[in-house]
Amino acid sequence: MNWYTEQWSDDCKFSLRYNKELHSEQTPFQKIDFYEGEEFGTFFTLDGLMMVNEKDEFIYHDMITHPAFATNPDIKKVLVIGGGDGGTAREVLRYPNVEKVVMAEIDERVFRLCQEYLPVTAKGVEEDPRMELRFEDGLAYVKNAPDASFDLILVDSTDPISVGEGLFTTAFYKECFRVLNDKGILINQHESPYFAEYAENMKKAHRKIRDIFPITNVYQYHMPTYPSGHWLFGFASKAFDPLKDLKAAEWEKFGLETKYYNTDLHKGAFALPSYVKEALLSDE
Amino acid sequence: MNWYTEQWSDDCKFSLRYNKELHSEQTPFQKIDFYEGEEFGTFFTLDGLMMVNEKDEFIYHDMITHPAFATNPDIKKVLVIGGGDGGTAREVLRYPNVEKVVMAEIDERVFRLCQEYLPVTAKGVEEDPRMELRFEDGLAYVKNAPDASFDLILVDSTDPISVGEGLFTTAFYKECFRVLNDKGILINQHESPYFAEYAENMKKAHRKIRDIFPITNVYQYHMPTYPSGHWLFGFASKAFDPLKDLKAAEWEKFGLETKYYNTDLHKGAFALPSYVKEALLSDE
Repeated sequence: MNWYTEQWSDDCKFSLRYNKELHSEQTPFQKIDFYEGEEFGTFFTLDGLMMVNEKDEFIYHDMITHPAFATNPDIKKVLVIGGGDGGTAREVLRYPNVEKVVMAEIDERVFRLCQEYLPVTAKGVEEDPRMELRFEDGLAYVKNAPDASFDLILVDSTDPISVGEGLFTTAFYKECFRVLNDKGILINQHESPYFAEYAENMKKAHRKIRDIFPITNVYQYHMPTYPSGHWLFGFASKAFDPLKDLKAAEWEKFGLETKYYNTDLHKGAFALPSYVKEALLSDE
Repeated sequence: MNWYTEQWSDDCKFSLRYNKELHSEQTPFQKIDFYEGEEFGTFFTLDGLMMVNEKDEFIYHDMITHPAFATNPDIKKVLVIGGGDGGTAREVLRYPNVEKVVMAEIDERVFRLCQEYLPVTAKGVEEDPRMELRFEDGLAYVKNAPDASFDLILVDSTDPISVGEGLFTTAFYKECFRVLNDKGILINQHESPYFAEYAENMKKAHRKIRDIFPITNVYQYHMPTYPSGHWLFGFASKAFDPLKDLKAAEWEKFGLETKYYNTDLHKGAFALPSYVKEALLSDE
């Protein structure tokens, strides 16, 4: 039996069984490995960290996308940073109001390999006429983008090591603020509160974002194949509060079927455990 | 390096590092193993399944106890079924209103070993004058208990295999209904929605309980060392709705410091993902 094993902390590891490795490649940016198994279907890792698998990708992609649209159902222009598997763009493209989606993914190989091995997330994305695929550094892209040109930015990044590092910096968040219009929302991959290393990244990201955006919240979801299963997104905005401005009835009218997200869960997701709230408020 | 490994499904396993095994024993009921490590402190398993560790026991014990008390702050008589580590009783005993706590734990060795190796959960429980410790089968205990004799029953059990099996039966839930008074609340360990085997147990338990109690809800929490980290409790009641009847301000007056639970999270915990709601409603 073959096991893919990920170290979640010095004292904790997580393993998934696979039948065969489909592909392995070192790109200029990172190591990409694709595996095929039974329960988790096809999955891939970047630098040895689980990114996407067929069993629970719906959770991550529901939660990065729908809370912003239920807060502002009028979103038309979306920038996805990272998200090379295509799943985030797939969810965004389900909204008929959306006119334009730019996806800035630094590593084209991730997207091409997902087109080949993981159609559940990548299929149809490139073909959508609203899509602009750009294989370039997300930080460079936002630096060059005009002011107030997006309603929504979704930062679908790896952890703040190697290729994802620039997407956890104050410089990056400031550029995001600038390119968002006055109703703009920033959703960012916000790490996790449980294991010390991830919790540090969570705290750092929150400190940086709350210095820039007037409205900053963090919401949680259950993502079993990510370290500890307790994972977060940040919701930062210039105008909208994700709870007070939730437009549940309007969102229902889109008629989107979602396996994880619903508007009650939207409200619940922002109610964090006390130890997480305390960590986010801390200034260490 | 020593690793304790638990199979979460055929294709998924979870491992914790430990420095030494403190104790191993086969009782008439189950195999008990105690380990000592760095990150997770002391932990123990029953029949090879993680029960309690020092890193995240606070999550489980907060969530099994406080939602019921925030819904009915007047709870005076409590029955804990199982809960041999003492952590559930420890939390219940923090409420000054509580007059009597019966703990019916089938396996005295679990409690005695926790007194020795896991004082964080067991210390002080036996000494509290409100406590009645009974080392007997929980199902037999409720069968013999008088009608309407408790305000709250907390079923702090293992999975429905071997020793925990009787605590997932219609016969048991019916006896719970009978021994609860007309304001009674039943909280039960309700398994998990993610891995197939656990999801089956979740569905079965819910079907049985909703045939007996007029008000039945399920709430979720993040428990990283249990399979998938997405874990549930059932909240069944004769009179109280955990959302409509939440008495947040009254609960705050107790002044209890809690690392996981808070009354916003209370509300959020009942907002389940769509796939979980669907599974709970299904009649298969």
